[in-house]
Amino acid sequence: MPVVNINSDIGESFGPWKMGDDAGVMPLIGSANIACGFHGGDPNVMLDTVKLAMSHGVTLGAHPGFPDLQGFGRRQIKMSAKEMENMCAYQIGALMGVAAMAGGKVTHVKAHGALGNLTAVDMDAARALVRAIKAIDPKLIHVGLANSCLAKATLEAGIPLASEGFMDRMYDDDGNLTSRANADAVHHDPAVAVRQVLAMVQEKVIVTRSGKRIPAEIHTLCVHGDEPTARALGAAVKQALLDAGVELKTLPEMAL
Amino acid sequence: MPVVNINSDIGESFGPWKMGDDAGVMPLIGSANIACGFHGGDPNVMLDTVKLAMSHGVTLGAHPGFPDLQGFGRRQIKMSAKEMENMCAYQIGALMGVAAMAGGKVTHVKAHGALGNLTAVDMDAARALVRAIKAIDPKLIHVGLANSCLAKATLEAGIPLASEGFMDRMYDDDGNLTSRANADAVHHDPAVAVRQVLAMVQEKVIVTRSGKRIPAEIHTLCVHGDEPTARALGAAVKQALLDAGVELKTLPEMAL
Amino acid sequence: MPVVNINSDIGESFGPWKMGDDAGVMPLIGSANIACGFHGGDPNVMLDTVKLAMSHGVTLGAHPGFPDLQGFGRRQIKMSAKEMENMCAYQIGALMGVAAMAGGKVTHVKAHGALGNLTAVDMDAARALVRAIKAIDPKLIHVGLANSCLAKATLEAGIPLASEGFMDRMYDDDGNLTSRANADAVHHDPAVAVRQVLAMVQEKVIVTRSGKRIPAEIHTLCVHGDEPTARALGAAVKQALLDAGVELKTLPEMAL
Amino acid sequence: MPVVNINSDIGESFGPWKMGDDAGVMPLIGSANIACGFHGGDPNVMLDTVKLAMSHGVTLGAHPGFPDLQGFGRRQIKMSAKEMENMCAYQIGALMGVAAMAGGKVTHVKAHGALGNLTAVDMDAARALVRAIKAIDPKLIHVGLANSCLAKATLEAGIPLASEGFMDRMYDDDGNLTSRANADAVHHDPAVAVRQVLAMVQEKVIVTRSGKRIPAEIHTLCVHGDEPTARALGAAVKQALLDAGVELKTLPEMAL
Repeated sequence: MPVVNINSDIGESFGPWKMGDDAGVMPLIGSANIACGFHGGDPNVMLDTVKLAMSHGVTLGAHPGFPDLQGFGRRQIKMSAKEMENMCAYQIGALMGVAAMAGGKVTHVKAHGALGNLTAVDMDAARALVRAIKAIDPKLIHVGLANSCLAKATLEAGIPLASEGFMDRMYDDDGNLTSRANADAVHHDPAVAVRQVLAMVQEKVIVTRSGKRIPAEIHTLCVHGDEPTARALGAAVKQALLDAGVELKTLPEMAL
Repeated sequence: MPVVNINSDIGESFGPWKMGDDAGVMPLIGSANIACGFHGGDPNVMLDTVKLAMSHGVTLGAHPGFPDLQGFGRRQIKMSAKEMENMCAYQIGALMGVAAMAGGKVTHVKAHGALGNLTAVDMDAARALVRAIKAIDPKLIHVGLANSCLAKATLEAGIPLASEGFMDRMYDDDGNLTSRANADAVHHDPAVAVRQVLAMVQEKVIVTRSGKRIPAEIHTLCVHGDEPTARALGAAVKQALLDAGVELKTLPEMAL
Repeated sequence: MPVVNINSDIGESFGPWKMGDDAGVMPLIGSANIACGFHGGDPNVMLDTVKLAMSHGVTLGAHPGFPDLQGFGRRQIKMSAKEMENMCAYQIGALMGVAAMAGGKVTHVKAHGALGNLTAVDMDAARALVRAIKAIDPKLIHVGLANSCLAKATLEAGIPLASEGFMDRMYDDDGNLTSRANADAVHHDPAVAVRQVLAMVQEKVIVTRSGKRIPAEIHTLCVHGDEPTARALGAAVKQALLDAGVELKTLPEMAL
Repeated sequence: MPVVNINSDIGESFGPWKMGDDAGVMPLIGSANIACGFHGGDPNVMLDTVKLAMSHGVTLGAHPGFPDLQGFGRRQIKMSAKEMENMCAYQIGALMGVAAMAGGKVTHVKAHGALGNLTAVDMDAARALVRAIKAIDPKLIHVGLANSCLAKATLEAGIPLASEGFMDRMYDDDGNLTSRANADAVHHDPAVAVRQVLAMVQEKVIVTRSGKRIPAEIHTLCVHGDEPTARALGAAVKQALLDAGVELKTLPEMAL
């Protein structure tokens, strides 16, 4: 019986400002990537998010980003690999501290925004992130884009990799995501998303734009919670997976 | 044979700005209170400080403060006890994450600046800080001013207390520190500091301004590292303690 | 013919986070208090807000606050009067710089949140704010709660005061706002708000909880834009003022 | 009689952290580039710096940078030209606000660190900075590296350019500064610096590494104040200029 995890970026409110519909997304997912205060989130938001996740049986992950609140971690800051490593260790630890207040445990890590994009394509940056994870706890699961530098650095370091696939994004024939500059980059039709995801989970392939089939072991699917249509698509995908007999698990329940 | 610990606030540089003489202070102390990025320190400074401390056999403590870099954590921010609790958990965890990069372990906590002052006199604030410490690790040693709200809240929660005494500050007859508004508030004469400390460690009393002797169990002495005269006084006290046969220990080595 | 201004706190979004319905509030007001980046707002939000205000003929005011983004400027930071003065000058100047990008001019100042509350009751703080305003431009209009320390310090300095009244808050017999701890502190019934405002504008009195009438010259009325009911009440008050023949003006158009 | 200005980056302390020897540098210069709170400086430091400069007859300039205190504005943040424009307007305005507290006036602008480097080589970024300057006050003098994109964008916009030369850096034959990766990139010998500067000021040429002479109109020379040797070199250059009959002026006194 095929298994897969669903993850989402969560806890990205800050102070008085709300972002996303965390309560609406929690029922759809097995594992939450929780902002750690650098690009979103603050100690209070983090604790509330940890409690909400735990009340849904959702496992906790750190979602570290660049220290750029105004830019929401989407603007790359040119820093050394060592600086990246240190700031990731700081953020992962900070979430562990806050999670402890609720008796929770951090079990995975997924980089955010510009840090995620950079570590997907730059081995030095990817290795910096992986060193931070491994130093803190070599059992922490690292969520990274399938076949990316992140995935390679994770395997190289011998820590658990959860290879990530997208339900709502088109893939190019080289396995990369189709640029958002193209009109068809994002799937809005749940039927298309369901077909793509079932191919990933049941047949272990990514079906690209031209119909090419790239072998890939996908462990976790990202659902976006920041707009109603993305949540609706995520709900449709979840139901289709259940209907197809796929078992949905938290990241620690996956055999990684 | 009497024993005592010496601690100091360390790692309060930030980015390109240096503060204090951490390398000069390390040989004087057994345990370091390391700034956690809110009032001073940043992930890079924190890691450098952790490594420096470990190279001297100095144990690691978190030194959480108010989120006020410009004010160096010396300006109280009026926030709820819950907000204080969360921000302390965040900072302690962050240092744990960074310390892990060097294979280090955080073994104590001491509040900084306005947060230290507030938690010394306000039970709600003191309990908030203590809840954060206990949730993260009930074996973490809490350094707090002898006989303060901090000390009471720590004992009440059943976590280890390291009761702190000052070597370079005059005490009033009520056991409080003499206000810096008074000319004699700070000891500059090493001989005076040595007498005060030996009374604390050998006779278990605080000798006040008028010569009154207040019973007190002092486990740790704070040395200031931010100016040369304070370091010189600290060095004299350390030598006098060794000459008097007092054993100097790290905080985890003390029986707390 | 009686005249009055309506003002509102605007531009309190930050980075990717939205706050309030600025586009919905602009048609209701004559003058906007624009957040300056310390408690809300950022250079991009500020410029967008300036342009939106100018497109509605709404005049521009600086809305300085404590440097506490997470707490939205609602948590007092204990700092010296001199520090307050300097941070207010910084924020007012910053908005002037951004406003210049759109050819706009800052013509008034109103303190935000905890800074507004503090300067209403503390003469040292009020004078600090007023010194900053006067140094930058003695023709800047200062919006302050009627009869408060702010109002006194403004008159004392000889700069223009716009005395502020509330449409949606109950007043105690001593002229202060009824604490929000009381169930009747906030008016939700537009008819009540309209009665209170017409008494202020037409009869120059504040009618308190017990019906007492306190003489007061009110130049500007604050409308809250952060929730739909507040905006609806503001719209009802505006219409009632127009129906009653009251002329609505921008702050620079008032004779202050 | 040849004339030239000497400028320096000043006011880069932050909160309790000191940087540079501003008091030692002021007697050497005619114009100060004052940090505006994003990469260094804060409202209190800014006001102290403004007062110190004014007491020496030194004219005031804004020194805007990327919003990256920890990285001291030396790490590029990938943002749009529009975001750069807005953040520069914010910072220039902020200094104007603070300067007004001391009766001072901002008369020039010079970009800091990574923002300076980027605007020197990227026309979009250079134009963004220039738009901000021009919108605030088209009489503001813009200090930019001779022959750079900054210089071009400034001339293009028709605002006053102060073309900058370096006293302590080697130039390559293409007119760019020799990379610090080379051992001879920085002049430590005052005699070498003096020769280079006199060629700039008296003969209007930059003499490069190989002895090539590139025509250049240099209006202002940057002296670094962050280390004693740089200050000593600056003092020697100043004296040599005076001995050679060169007149030292503030930027507004130059005919730009």
